[in-house]
Amino acid sequence: MGGSRALSLSSLCAAAAASRSPLLASHHRARHLRPRLAAAMSSSSSPAPAPGAAPSASSAIDFLTLCYRLKTTKRAGWVRRGLQGPESVADHMYRMGVMALVAADLPAGVNRDRCVKMAIVHDIAEAIVGDITPADGVPKEEKSRREKEALDQMCALLGGGSRADEIRELWMEYEDNATLEAKVVKDFDKVEMILQALEYEKEQGRDLEEFFQSTAGKFQTDVGKAWAAEIASRRK
Amino acid sequence: MGGSRALSLSSLCAAAAASRSPLLASHHRARHLRPRLAAAMSSSSSPAPAPGAAPSASSAIDFLTLCYRLKTTKRAGWVRRGLQGPESVADHMYRMGVMALVAADLPAGVNRDRCVKMAIVHDIAEAIVGDITPADGVPKEEKSRREKEALDQMCALLGGGSRADEIRELWMEYEDNATLEAKVVKDFDKVEMILQALEYEKEQGRDLEEFFQSTAGKFQTDVGKAWAAEIASRRK
Repeated sequence: MGGSRALSLSSLCAAAAASRSPLLASHHRARHLRPRLAAAMSSSSSPAPAPGAAPSASSAIDFLTLCYRLKTTKRAGWVRRGLQGPESVADHMYRMGVMALVAADLPAGVNRDRCVKMAIVHDIAEAIVGDITPADGVPKEEKSRREKEALDQMCALLGGGSRADEIRELWMEYEDNATLEAKVVKDFDKVEMILQALEYEKEQGRDLEEFFQSTAGKFQTDVGKAWAAEIASRRK
Repeated sequence: MGGSRALSLSSLCAAAAASRSPLLASHHRARHLRPRLAAAMSSSSSPAPAPGAAPSASSAIDFLTLCYRLKTTKRAGWVRRGLQGPESVADHMYRMGVMALVAADLPAGVNRDRCVKMAIVHDIAEAIVGDITPADGVPKEEKSRREKEALDQMCALLGGGSRADEIRELWMEYEDNATLEAKVVKDFDKVEMILQALEYEKEQGRDLEEFFQSTAGKFQTDVGKAWAAEIASRRK
């Protein structure tokens, strides 16, 4: 947990409310943000846990309350394109977890259970910073910095300990593309997006070619390549 | 995989479309169901895999396409109460997976990774049968029968093999409350619901007492009891 600060849920909510992120200002959930923040802030009067302590029921519920925003934050790429009823960030991570569970041909030596966990953790910092996409014009390094800071705050909310450590390790491993598991889950991230794009194209009669173009040639694993090819074949 | 039949995605979609389930007829997504079904049916022209074979890219994408409905199916309890922007079944399972990841005080001997996987699998049959709640008047045994049949169909879609086997084992273990992991995840199911109820109460100014009453005294584990007590304390 290094030098991360122990923060209360209310201070995190206040920080998120004060954020000038284009996503927080413009995305689909913005009109409901303040009432939710006020509700979340009023729900917790407990002090932040001491760093290094195992998370108490109070800090665990604080963390999970923050994760509510992953359900209400709609994926920004779909919002920008004006799609109806766009999925949430949680919806996206959910199906990535299922992908890790059903993939038959993972590379040798890949820890499947770690992939499942990484899938449900990799976008968790969006509970604070929102879903920043290339269209927002935020440089990649700045996006990474904001998300890492948010992740630190979330881990601090848990008061450190083994639970915070595992979440941080999973997130950093993915962010750094550091292991075979990270490469697999990064492919699932792209596959999940283009499968969703295909579903929206068929359901809402739209052309979402840009999402296919943005991922073309970027798959790192055989399973990612095979699934992307299968999805492309259904699009014709 | 025993005697389960190999079925195509199109036949599953047709079965779901023909269903007389009150949920499929009445829930929030019903007006969009037929276009989606038509789209899904047109997306797959591949034959069902042979039973026992590892899932091909085609059968994996068929399975994942079916799981799209977990994103679009809104949790029926919230729909019935007329809540705005109700969460999806996938949203609910997602935060349960996070619960398994952050819980510090799991009972001794509990396999955390198995809890994470069970959390994201336990409602997966709702991709076919929808979210059946006590208010629908479907007897518990009939609900279980429908869901088990749907689970069998989904496993058959994968063509059997180790991936289908693990999904079936996780689902059955939960359904049968057969292990300590199942008891933990059943508690997370209830905790996630009452935390969401509290969030909706504060956000939308509603009284959702019935959801707290329906779970009171039914928690099986210390972590479930502690988290439920924490949530109750924030409701006062």
